[in-house]
Order: sequence, then structure tokens, then C-alpha cells
Amino acid sequence: MKYCPNCASLLTIKIPDDDSRERHVCESCGSIHYQNPRNVVGSIPIYDNQVLLCRRAIEPRHGYWTLPAGFMELGESTSDGAARETLEEAGAHVDIGPLYSLLNVPHAEQVHLFYLAKMHSPEFSAGQESLEVALFDEASIPWDELAFPTVKQTLEWFFADRAAGILDGEFPVRSRDVLPSEKI
Amino acid sequence: MKYCPNCASLLTIKIPDDDSRERHVCESCGSIHYQNPRNVVGSIPIYDNQVLLCRRAIEPRHGYWTLPAGFMELGESTSDGAARETLEEAGAHVDIGPLYSLLNVPHAEQVHLFYLAKMHSPEFSAGQESLEVALFDEASIPWDELAFPTVKQTLEWFFADRAAGILDGEFPVRSRDVLPSEKI
Repeated sequence: MKYCPNCASLLTIKIPDDDSRERHVCESCGSIHYQNPRNVVGSIPIYDNQVLLCRRAIEPRHGYWTLPAGFMELGESTSDGAARETLEEAGAHVDIGPLYSLLNVPHAEQVHLFYLAKMHSPEFSAGQESLEVALFDEASIPWDELAFPTVKQTLEWFFADRAAGILDGEFPVRSRDVLPSEKI
Repeated sequence: MKYCPNCASLLTIKIPDDDSRERHVCESCGSIHYQNPRNVVGSIPIYDNQVLLCRRAIEPRHGYWTLPAGFMELGESTSDGAARETLEEAGAHVDIGPLYSLLNVPHAEQVHLFYLAKMHSPEFSAGQESLEVALFDEASIPWDELAFPTVKQTLEWFFADRAAGILDGEFPVRSRDVLPSEKI
């Protein structure tokens, strides 16, 4: 961010009055342009004990497998965004259930949120951002070809919790911070 | 957003190739400027069965009471942001516990997240954005003078769950969407 989106003047980086952090400030029109982390919202789509994964057709991590997820859009809720991404990337209609995991990725300026989701039917298809989409049982998950640490961690938690019968009752959101060193 | 933050050219609003929504696109340098909802992170600071509230010194809702909360900053996690806001607005050091509530406010393009938090001591002080800060037991909560529906809903859930003994065990995140019509 170099120029003011409101008036096209060159921006200054400074700490505004009554603030404690450097911001992009326009000395010309007086506006302050805050920057904040973005939410990535997605789902764990389940059909008949299998989980639906997408193989990415875009960078980063082209060719690797992911849970359907993407940036939350203005005007939608986290759960609506998760359902939308599941339909867009995997062609699957789901009923969104409870929030399952919240993973902070501070170095990427992102928060990843995954919802449990029930597929209406075993129908799915690769969207524009997916090379292919497939249902996997636990034994066939491509652990060495997963796209992101937040997806790997969410799947690990999910299968452990399912085996322990925890998902049948009420359970807390699984949550942790992801470190920059965590590359798959 | 009128001008490109990268090159100061006038922006065009259009649907980019491989997208389905209108974005702010720069025809000059080719950049697409996405806009996404922001997270407001805060805490429910507890000391000796009382909850710490702040009376707002800033708009919106100047003079009304709120849980300490504010916009999540780049480079921090949701829980770190909640602890930071609690210190900045209420002068209180807390141990952040589990995520308690997630409220979507689509019309405000925000997601509000509140964490349970234990105060280290009954010490607190009004920060720059607070007129005063005080501990309240359930009977003395100023229900008619709360700043935001997400704060009111979180406190209602909290006292009901505490009375039911739910907070002693594991519990799911309380979550719902807030409607534009919900003004306090």
C-alpha cells in the first residue's frame, strides 16, 4: 500500500494520535488505512464416514489436497462462507454443523475456521480451483500430499475425536496457533 | 476505495476472470484489491465471580458499557488480540481461556470473538478508549446500557451457562448471526 485509496496521495507510515502502532496515513485527506487479518473459512464435508477433499488447481500448493476453504467475503457469515466454498470448490451441497477448528496463522495474517458439514448426497464435482475432488476414508487420506498445516491438523483432530466418540456430543472448538516453521 | 493503493490509477469495479464477484480492479497495474470482513476480538474477564466491563470513551456507543474488545491486528492470534485489548482498554492482565462465543455481524462486515479470561488480580484501570472500568456481579450488569448486541448476547449466554455449571467442563462455542435490526 503506497497511495491513498481515497485521494491518490502518497501515504505516510506513522503512528496516529491515540494509537500505538504504525499505520498507513494520508496527510492529504486525513484517512487512516488499517490492515487486518483475513478469515479463511471451510468445511469438513462428510458422507458415509468419508471426508471430501479437493486437489488444488491453483497456487499456492498446486496439485496438493485440501479441505474446501477460501477467503470469507463481505456480507456473509463464517458458516455461510464455509458452505459457499464447499459448493464452489467441490460442487457439494452441505448442511453446516458446529465450528470444529480455529487455527491462527499469524505469519500469514490469517485465521482458518473449519466447520463440520454433512453432505446431502455423494454428488460432487471439481470447481474452477480444483483439479479433482474425491471422498476418502481415514485409511486413504493422502497425508503426504496435503496442502496446508491447518488442513492436516484439522483432519488429525477430526479422526482422533471421531474415534473417541467425541463428535456425537458437545465438544469445544479445537484451536492452536500455526508456526512459520510448520511446512508440510 | 477509488484509487489503486499500488499505482494511484483510478480503479474499475468489475468481475475479474475466474471470479464471480465484483472487485476493485486496477486496469493499469493489474492488481485486484479484495475486501474482507474483519475480526473483533475480546474477552470476558472474570474475577471472583464478577465480570469486568468498560464504559466507552469513543464512538460508536460513547458512554455505553462493553466487554473489552477491538479489531484484531496483523501478526497476532485471536487470543493474543483478546488479551491485548483487555490490557489496553481495561488495564487488566488476564489468562485467556477457551473461545466462548463467535458472533457474525454480516451487515457490519465483522466477526466478533470473545474468550473466557481469568484476571490475575482485581487490578484494572480505564485505558484511552474507556471512561471507566468496573467489576459487575450478575445482578448489577447494566443491561440497558450495553454498547453492542454481541456483548449483550455473550453475557446472556455466559450467565446462563455458568448457572448451569456448563463452564466447568467442555462446551461448544456459542455462535449465531446478528441481524441489522438488533439494536440495543
